[in-house]
Amino acid sequence: MTALEQQGAAAKAASLKLMTCTTGEKNKALLAIAQALCDHKQRIIDANAADMAKAKENGMSAALLDRLALDSKRIDGIAAGVREVAALEDPIGQVDKMAMRPNGLVIGRKKVPLGVIAIIFESRPNVTVDAAVLCLKSGNAVILRGGKEAFNSNNALTELMRRALAESGLPEASVALVQDTSRNSATELMQLSKYVDVLIPRGGAGLIRSVVDNARVPVIETGVGNCHIYIESSADLKMGAEIIYNAKCSRPSVCNAAETLLVDKSVAAEFLPMAKALLDQKSTQLRGDAETVRILGGCVVPATEDDYNTEYGDYILAVKVVSGLDEAIEHINTYGSKHSEAIVTNDYISSQRFLNEVDAAAVYVNASTRFTDGGEFGLGAEIGISTQKMHARGPMGLEQLTSSKYIIYGSGQVR
Amino acid sequence: MTALEQQGAAAKAASLKLMTCTTGEKNKALLAIAQALCDHKQRIIDANAADMAKAKENGMSAALLDRLALDSKRIDGIAAGVREVAALEDPIGQVDKMAMRPNGLVIGRKKVPLGVIAIIFESRPNVTVDAAVLCLKSGNAVILRGGKEAFNSNNALTELMRRALAESGLPEASVALVQDTSRNSATELMQLSKYVDVLIPRGGAGLIRSVVDNARVPVIETGVGNCHIYIESSADLKMGAEIIYNAKCSRPSVCNAAETLLVDKSVAAEFLPMAKALLDQKSTQLRGDAETVRILGGCVVPATEDDYNTEYGDYILAVKVVSGLDEAIEHINTYGSKHSEAIVTNDYISSQRFLNEVDAAAVYVNASTRFTDGGEFGLGAEIGISTQKMHARGPMGLEQLTSSKYIIYGSGQVR
Repeated sequence: MTALEQQGAAAKAASLKLMTCTTGEKNKALLAIAQALCDHKQRIIDANAADMAKAKENGMSAALLDRLALDSKRIDGIAAGVREVAALEDPIGQVDKMAMRPNGLVIGRKKVPLGVIAIIFESRPNVTVDAAVLCLKSGNAVILRGGKEAFNSNNALTELMRRALAESGLPEASVALVQDTSRNSATELMQLSKYVDVLIPRGGAGLIRSVVDNARVPVIETGVGNCHIYIESSADLKMGAEIIYNAKCSRPSVCNAAETLLVDKSVAAEFLPMAKALLDQKSTQLRGDAETVRILGGCVVPATEDDYNTEYGDYILAVKVVSGLDEAIEHINTYGSKHSEAIVTNDYISSQRFLNEVDAAAVYVNASTRFTDGGEFGLGAEIGISTQKMHARGPMGLEQLTSSKYIIYGSGQVR
Repeated sequence: MTALEQQGAAAKAASLKLMTCTTGEKNKALLAIAQALCDHKQRIIDANAADMAKAKENGMSAALLDRLALDSKRIDGIAAGVREVAALEDPIGQVDKMAMRPNGLVIGRKKVPLGVIAIIFESRPNVTVDAAVLCLKSGNAVILRGGKEAFNSNNALTELMRRALAESGLPEASVALVQDTSRNSATELMQLSKYVDVLIPRGGAGLIRSVVDNARVPVIETGVGNCHIYIESSADLKMGAEIIYNAKCSRPSVCNAAETLLVDKSVAAEFLPMAKALLDQKSTQLRGDAETVRILGGCVVPATEDDYNTEYGDYILAVKVVSGLDEAIEHINTYGSKHSEAIVTNDYISSQRFLNEVDAAAVYVNASTRFTDGGEFGLGAEIGISTQKMHARGPMGLEQLTSSKYIIYGSGQVR
């Protein structure tokens, strides 16, 4: 057995225990985890300091260093997040559609944990705790494989969680951190079908591609967001300009940020300068089609086909003037990543057609795509945003970390 | 573009049309398909005769020939099945959890089709129509890849369905049959991630293994069933004998048939001869542990570890005497395929522990595992029985062929 297979076997055994834990037992362990994080801040900060020192040596950018850093306040924030998950409703054990069949069998469908969830993620150490406690609350064991830059931080956090679990009477193997941070361990985890029920990769397009190529375990793809805002001809143009400015510039690195602006040709000449005035506040580079260049002039970089396929994650926005709703919907269904899409309109039929015909996890009328988020949608917390159609679509909360089983009460029925 | 990529692109385009069809439009097409099957029986029978002739030449067994054969009565049965699917409730368009968030956004989750479903199946031609109409009713396009033995039959059925679709105003590319029946086409279909949203393999362990190894599209595994009946010490032993006889012998080739009998040691000496008396009616071979051999004598073949891992699909039953509920649950969670598992008991705590602690799609108290079936569970019809935990578990009806999208009504909200 490899080290990872041993972790897998231990996680599987732990998952069978977690499957039958009560909500009270799980919440007690979660609160113990929150307490342990607060009680052992210095240990976490010391481990994080080792990661930070190495990252600086390796010339990590200031933005990434900031994502890696943990201090007392951030640890308090992580602990507060754990307590919020403890306060969420437990989906496990709910039974729906229970009914008697003509032969007297009483059949119901009960929510149960998925089993063992593997999560591959990149640098931010807070994900270690956030993801683990969502899995635990929904009765799942979790195998975490974080980036090598955050290994010491992740290891300290995981050790504290494991000890808190054991002290609360739950199996410490319910949470495990893969100790090998080479690419090999990620590939091995993707193929650990004997022990892993579901793999959730959280990261960029490169990670997602590697998972699609290598995984032998069921996968929930997350996070790639090539999102559009379409300004329809009847739109309140001021509202439209505020929405595209918010969707592009409030946080360009996240997956629900907009990457392409589509504008109806009848309002383009009036709208584009209004939008540009706001986007200029963040020096947003515009990459536009010929009509956009004609309207806004030489400040616009001519767009290529590639631009419409790109998730910039930066202050760059592709722009296209379209002939109407049909072209907008076709463009989105061709180039979009099926994440979040918005129309700005005051036309009833256009709003309904956009909601029905655009194929995406979240479709908006007159709001920014930036709201696609577990907290904003009222799920309490999220483990990622699914961009596939199977199992879960859009923000995934506790409910999306469950499976079901049919329970059948008989009295001797045979077929 | 390969031939299969062309079919994929056409199916994807068709799926966008189907996504917005009304229930009335879909039902009209389904009824037209049923009518076309009845109107063109001779064409189907002729195509099937070509398959049958070739199969006989190749020495196909009588049992498999029977599964391949189509006659007027069987075609009527297929058409009746199509009409039943037309009569089922359409899950598409249902919106749940619609509510207003504190910022005024109104957010709901709407049931939508998965998109393009690929199905790889083996010989029976009725699956061609059964599977296609379930996909169509739930608004999905479908790419069928049947076995080469049934190619002429499948092709005739598919052509009739496509023509009926076109005549009803739906895209004929909503249903496609892969024309190449070599192994290459199956592998290519498993990797067609640009066009296929979900792959459902229907077949034996070899097909499932090939899918796990090769697939780059999301998969719902179906059909492997290593099911157990556990006779607990308080069981009504006569009921237990009838249940194991039914679960093993009513149709041994199907996935919900029992493969292993577990018997509590306190009742083994009394129960095993009762069970054997019934199982002998079908000359069932018993493969037992040392205690079973001791009780029943030399007619029992000594069981090996392999026997507990095997889905016989035949009149063969593994038997093990266990020390009690703990050992029974552990045995099932170790060797079972998480399909269907049953306890026969009159003990309350044992019944609840079995339902909670056995990890399977369907867990029964005092009934035969043979009931795990979409029709028996009240789903109307099924496209297969999922043995994985992601997306769907157990019998899959129309609801399991859907995804969801969040629809959001705003009034200018930005974040």
